[in-house]
Amino acid sequence: MITREEVMFFDTDCGGVVHNLAYLRMIETCRTRLAAKLGLDLPTMSETRLYPVVVRTEVDYRAPAKLGDWLRIEGRLAEIEGAKFWCSFVMIRESDGQILVRARQALALVQMPEGKPKRLPESLKAHLLKEG
Amino acid sequence: MITREEVMFFDTDCGGVVHNLAYLRMIETCRTRLAAKLGLDLPTMSETRLYPVVVRTEVDYRAPAKLGDWLRIEGRLAEIEGAKFWCSFVMIRESDGQILVRARQALALVQMPEGKPKRLPESLKAHLLKEG
Amino acid sequence: MITREEVMFFDTDCGGVVHNLAYLRMIETCRTRLAAKLGLDLPTMSETRLYPVVVRTEVDYRAPAKLGDWLRIEGRLAEIEGAKFWCSFVMIRESDGQILVRARQALALVQMPEGKPKRLPESLKAHLLKEG
Amino acid sequence: MITREEVMFFDTDCGGVVHNLAYLRMIETCRTRLAAKLGLDLPTMSETRLYPVVVRTEVDYRAPAKLGDWLRIEGRLAEIEGAKFWCSFVMIRESDGQILVRARQALALVQMPEGKPKRLPESLKAHLLKEG
Repeated sequence: MITREEVMFFDTDCGGVVHNLAYLRMIETCRTRLAAKLGLDLPTMSETRLYPVVVRTEVDYRAPAKLGDWLRIEGRLAEIEGAKFWCSFVMIRESDGQILVRARQALALVQMPEGKPKRLPESLKAHLLKEG
Repeated sequence: MITREEVMFFDTDCGGVVHNLAYLRMIETCRTRLAAKLGLDLPTMSETRLYPVVVRTEVDYRAPAKLGDWLRIEGRLAEIEGAKFWCSFVMIRESDGQILVRARQALALVQMPEGKPKRLPESLKAHLLKEG
Repeated sequence: MITREEVMFFDTDCGGVVHNLAYLRMIETCRTRLAAKLGLDLPTMSETRLYPVVVRTEVDYRAPAKLGDWLRIEGRLAEIEGAKFWCSFVMIRESDGQILVRARQALALVQMPEGKPKRLPESLKAHLLKEG
Repeated sequence: MITREEVMFFDTDCGGVVHNLAYLRMIETCRTRLAAKLGLDLPTMSETRLYPVVVRTEVDYRAPAKLGDWLRIEGRLAEIEGAKFWCSFVMIRESDGQILVRARQALALVQMPEGKPKRLPESLKAHLLKEG
C-alpha cells in the first residue's frame, strides 16, 4: 500500500523539521489503508468492533522532512507470528528519493469493548503468501 | 478552574511558536477539569456515555507562546442558553502575565452512541448562580 | 479549494465519533492548499518565513462524522478586512451530502521569527474579485 | 523523572481506549522534563537551537488505558552509546498499578537548523553514573 502526505505546519516543530509523532500518524494512515486491502476495512471494523491493535512499534528516524515536502509511505504485511502480524513501512521524500523513516509494527486483532484477542483470519496468511 | 501547561516541542511548529491547534488541546484539558467540577466527571461519563459535546468554538489568538513557556488556562462556566452551556477561557503566559488567547465554547449534553441531545441538569444552573 | 479526508482512528474519540480538534486539523490542510493557490505556498513560506497566522477561528459543529467516513472540505477566500483575510470552510460527508461543520478563520501575514505583521499582497484582492 | 497524566477525550479513539500515539505524546512530556533535569532545558534549547532528536523509538503496548485514568510515567536515562543516549519509560495506571506501556528511545544532540550531530556533554555520563 502506498500513501502520500504533504508536510503541513502541524507536522513540524520549532526545530524546523517534522516532529517524530507526525511520521507515526502518517504511517497509521498507510497502515489503515493496508488493513483495508487485507480485508480489515474501517466501516466493517466500526460495526463489528473487531480492531487491529498495535502491540509493538519500532521506528528509526534517518533524516528529517521539512514543511512542504511530499512524502511517500510504503507499507506492507511483512510477517505473521502466532496471533500477531507485522507490518513494515518506509517513508521516502519524493523530491530526492531519500529514505527518512523505517518502521515496523506488530498488531493483534482485538474484540472491543472486552479487549479480547482474536485469532487471525486465514485470509491474512493468503495475502502474505501472495505478496511474498 | 485553572490548569497549567508547559509548552512542549509537539505544541510548536516551524514558525517557532505554538501551533493554533495546540492551544485548543490545552483548553480542552481545562474544560474537562471544569466539567468535572460541575458534576460531569470523566469516569462517570465513560460509564453513562452521556458526554458534553462542543457545538461551537470561538478563539482569538492575541500573542504567541514559545517552547518552554508556562501557560495558565482559566476556564469558567459563562452562560446557559437553552440546552447549551457556554464556557469561556483565557490563556496567560505566566512569566509576563500577557494574555495570549481568549476562547468561548458552547457545549450540549449528548447521549452516545445514539447522539441524542439531553436537557442540562439543574445543578449546572446552580453552579452558574453561585459563581456569578 | 477542495480536499478530501478519510476518518482515521486517530480522528475519533471514545464517544465513537470524530473529535472536535480533528476537524480543525483537516480544515488546516484545506487552508494550506488554498493559501498555495493564492500564492502563499509552503516551500516559499519555509524560505521567507513569512507565514499566514490564524488570528481568529469560529467553528460550528452540526453533525458528527464516524470512522471510515469520507469527508469533503471546501475552503475559499471569503473577505479581506484591513491586514486580515477571512477564509470560510464547509465540511460535508460524501456518502449522504450532510453538512457536518462550518468554520471561518481570519488570518494575518506575519514575518517570523520577529512576529511582525505585514501588509497583504495585492494579488489576494485580485483573487477575491475573481472568485466573487 | 516522574510525570502524571489524566486521560482526556483527545487521547482516546473509538475503540474506547487510549490511542497508541497518545501514549507517545505523554512519554515525550516525561522525556522533556527528564532532559531538563539532565541539563537540556527547553528555554536553553530554544535559544541555542541544540536539540535532542529522537533517532529510534521502541514501544510495547501491554494493556490499554481508559478515559479518566490517571497514568504515571517514569522515565530515566538508561544508557549512553557513542553519540546517542537511551531513555527508558514505563507507564503505569495509578488505580491498580498495572504496567500499560514500556518504551525506549535513542536520542542524539543535533544543532538546528543545519541538522549537524553534536558530541554528548560529559555531564550526561556523570548523571548516568550517579543514577546507575
